[in-house]
This record gives sequence, structure tokens and C-alpha cells, in this order.
Amino acid sequence: MRLHDYWRSSASWRVRIALNLKDLAFEQVTVDLLAGGQHAPAYKELNPQGLVPLLEDGADRLGQSLAIIEYLEERYPQPPLLPRDPALRGRVRSLALHIACDIHPLNNTRVLRHLREAMGIDKEGVQRWYAHWIAEGLASLEAALQASAGRYCVGDTVSLADVCLVPQVGNARRYRCELGPYPTIRRIDEALAALPAFERARPERQPDAGPAAGVPG
Amino acid sequence: MRLHDYWRSSASWRVRIALNLKDLAFEQVTVDLLAGGQHAPAYKELNPQGLVPLLEDGADRLGQSLAIIEYLEERYPQPPLLPRDPALRGRVRSLALHIACDIHPLNNTRVLRHLREAMGIDKEGVQRWYAHWIAEGLASLEAALQASAGRYCVGDTVSLADVCLVPQVGNARRYRCELGPYPTIRRIDEALAALPAFERARPERQPDAGPAAGVPG
Repeated sequence: MRLHDYWRSSASWRVRIALNLKDLAFEQVTVDLLAGGQHAPAYKELNPQGLVPLLEDGADRLGQSLAIIEYLEERYPQPPLLPRDPALRGRVRSLALHIACDIHPLNNTRVLRHLREAMGIDKEGVQRWYAHWIAEGLASLEAALQASAGRYCVGDTVSLADVCLVPQVGNARRYRCELGPYPTIRRIDEALAALPAFERARPERQPDAGPAAGVPG
Repeated sequence: MRLHDYWRSSASWRVRIALNLKDLAFEQVTVDLLAGGQHAPAYKELNPQGLVPLLEDGADRLGQSLAIIEYLEERYPQPPLLPRDPALRGRVRSLALHIACDIHPLNNTRVLRHLREAMGIDKEGVQRWYAHWIAEGLASLEAALQASAGRYCVGDTVSLADVCLVPQVGNARRYRCELGPYPTIRRIDEALAALPAFERARPERQPDAGPAAGVPG
């Protein structure tokens, strides 16, 4: 299996966690987002969307982190990242999509770059934008977790929701967002950080990791 | 079954299509997004995220349109909205998430309102923002569809990808975005529009539909 990814991409980070949890070996191919590797013709041929991650599994090629993880779940079901019960599966997916659709897309690199370069928003304005969506998203996520959280996001079993939570919290920390108001999120994030599958997926542990730079301007 | 929705919400629109395709009867409860109904304490109690749609199915409550549709798919499998083969299922989900994670979240009402009200971007600036993400998103979607499209997004069977496509194209039309460069998307959208399940889900056909206003300022 081959994963086209980038150390700092949170969507790639999610897939690395899932692959590790399922104990699947994978080769990593770096797509350097800062150097524009995602727009290179050879990569666009593999993934017309021009985003990471992309998974190659034999002849199958798949983009979009959550589609990749659902695919892994179906093809390599052990250990499961979704519970058996349809209502609980729905709860896990709902939390995962809360992050993947309503927090992350507003704050990823291409959006921050557009604010800066195409709209002329200054560094402080971009930081305010980032912090606004983190605060709104994590506050409602904290509220949603009250109905489901155990040791992890849904009960005491690691799930797709946890796979999405850790990279999002990691990003929020990198942008120095205030995490004080979200004690449940912080507690779950801490419990997950101790698991080897999560630890090995961290950006700074990847072969293409650059210097531990702070907030990009 | 009860769907808390709003006529103009594209995420609600997706769920209406899926319910219609599966021929499931549902009661609609309007959450008036323009009047702030999503922030009302009684609604936040049902859905702490404060977004629509929300599905109630017996004792189960579920937010996030794609989580709702996956739940419907598991609990009411006929007719299926996902193919059987894992790689094809992945392709369908990848196209759906392309829309749900990388196009729609940048252009929904709360984001446009934030640009206008919190950041002071003028009407033309907001329209440029909208058109930029539509153009980038639909261009890469058009490219991705070349590998999968038949009569519909993936082959000749209606799927979750189609359920997401129609509301996104409807939104792009409402904001008067240029659709000329995306012939495959236009062709599929037209084929889908002719199906009764899609026709009945259209915003203007909903009980809470307001006047057919143009682009909101």
C-alpha cells in the first residue's frame, strides 16, 4: 500500500492513524504542499483533485481521507473503527464529519493562503479567522461529546471520530488557540496521544518532517 | 421519521433526496436559518452543533447530512446509494466528500455571513469568494468525474455522489456561477433533475420555501 501524503496535512494525518490502528504497512510518498507538489501534472494524473492524501492499494486509487478510511474499514475490518450498531455508527460518523466538514475545511492551507494572497488579509486577520472557526467548532464539538464520550469520543473504544479529533486539536495547538474551554476534548486528546498508533502518525515523526516551525504567516 | 431542515440548506437538500430515493416518509420541521432558529435553546438541545439537518428516527437523533445518509443506507438498504464493491464505494464516497468537505463548507450561509459581518468584506468581495471556491471545486470535480461517470457520477446507478452533486450545482446556479466549463457536471445534473426523488427535494418545493429571491447580499 502506498500513501501520498504530507507531514503537516491533517487529512493525511487521519489516514496514517487509521493505517496504524489497523496495523497495515504502507510506503509514504511525499507531496510537498509548500512547494506546490499537489499541482504537479504527474500527481494530478493520480489525483485530479490535487489534494493529499491519496491511497494506492493494488490497482485501486482513492482520495479524500474519510473515503479512504471507510474503504480500509471495509477491506481490512480488524480492529473496527466503527461500532456495529447503526445508531452508534451514525454518532461516530457525525462527530468525524463535524470536524472534517465544519472545522477543518475553513482552516486548511489553501484557504489561509487565499485569504492572504488573493484577499490581502493581514497576518492578524488570518489568525483571527483561524481562531474564530476553531472556537466555534470546538465549542459545539465539546457540547456534542457530552452525549457520547467515555474514555474516547464515543464510549471506551477508539473510533473514526478519535482519528479526526487528534489532528484537529494538533492544528489548533499549532495556531496557539485557547483550548481551556474544552476539557472533554483535551482529556480525550491526551488519552489518545498515549496510544502508539497515534504517536507514530504525528507530523514531526514523518520522514518528510521539516523544522518545527510555528504559525506560518 | 422527522427531519429538521430548512428549504435552502444544501445539506438538508441532500438528506431529502436520500429519503425520497429510499421512499421513506418523513415529517419536516423547519429550522429557519435566517431567523436564527438553529441557535434556539430547544433546537440546540436536540442538536448541540446548531446546524441543520437533524434526523429523528424513533429514539435516534443524528446530525451531519452524510452521517444521516450512511445511517439510512445501513438501516434501510433498498435501493442502495452505495455500490457493493469496496473500491467503487470508495469512489462514490470520495466524490461526495469532494463536495461536502472541499466545496460546500467554504460557501455556506454562516461563512458568507462571517465574511460580511465580522470581516467587513463587501458584496462583490463575498461574490468573488463564492465564485472562486465553486470554480476551483467544480473544475477538479469535473476532472475526477472523467474516470467514473456514466449516466450519473459513478456509472449508470444513482449514488451518494449524485445526492451531493445536485444541491451543489443548484447553489452555484443561485449565485450565478459560470457552469459552461463543466459539461459532465451539467449533463449529470440534468439527468438527475428529471428523477422524481430529486424533483421533490428541490428547495422551492418545500413547505417552508420563501420567495425565489436572488443572491443574498
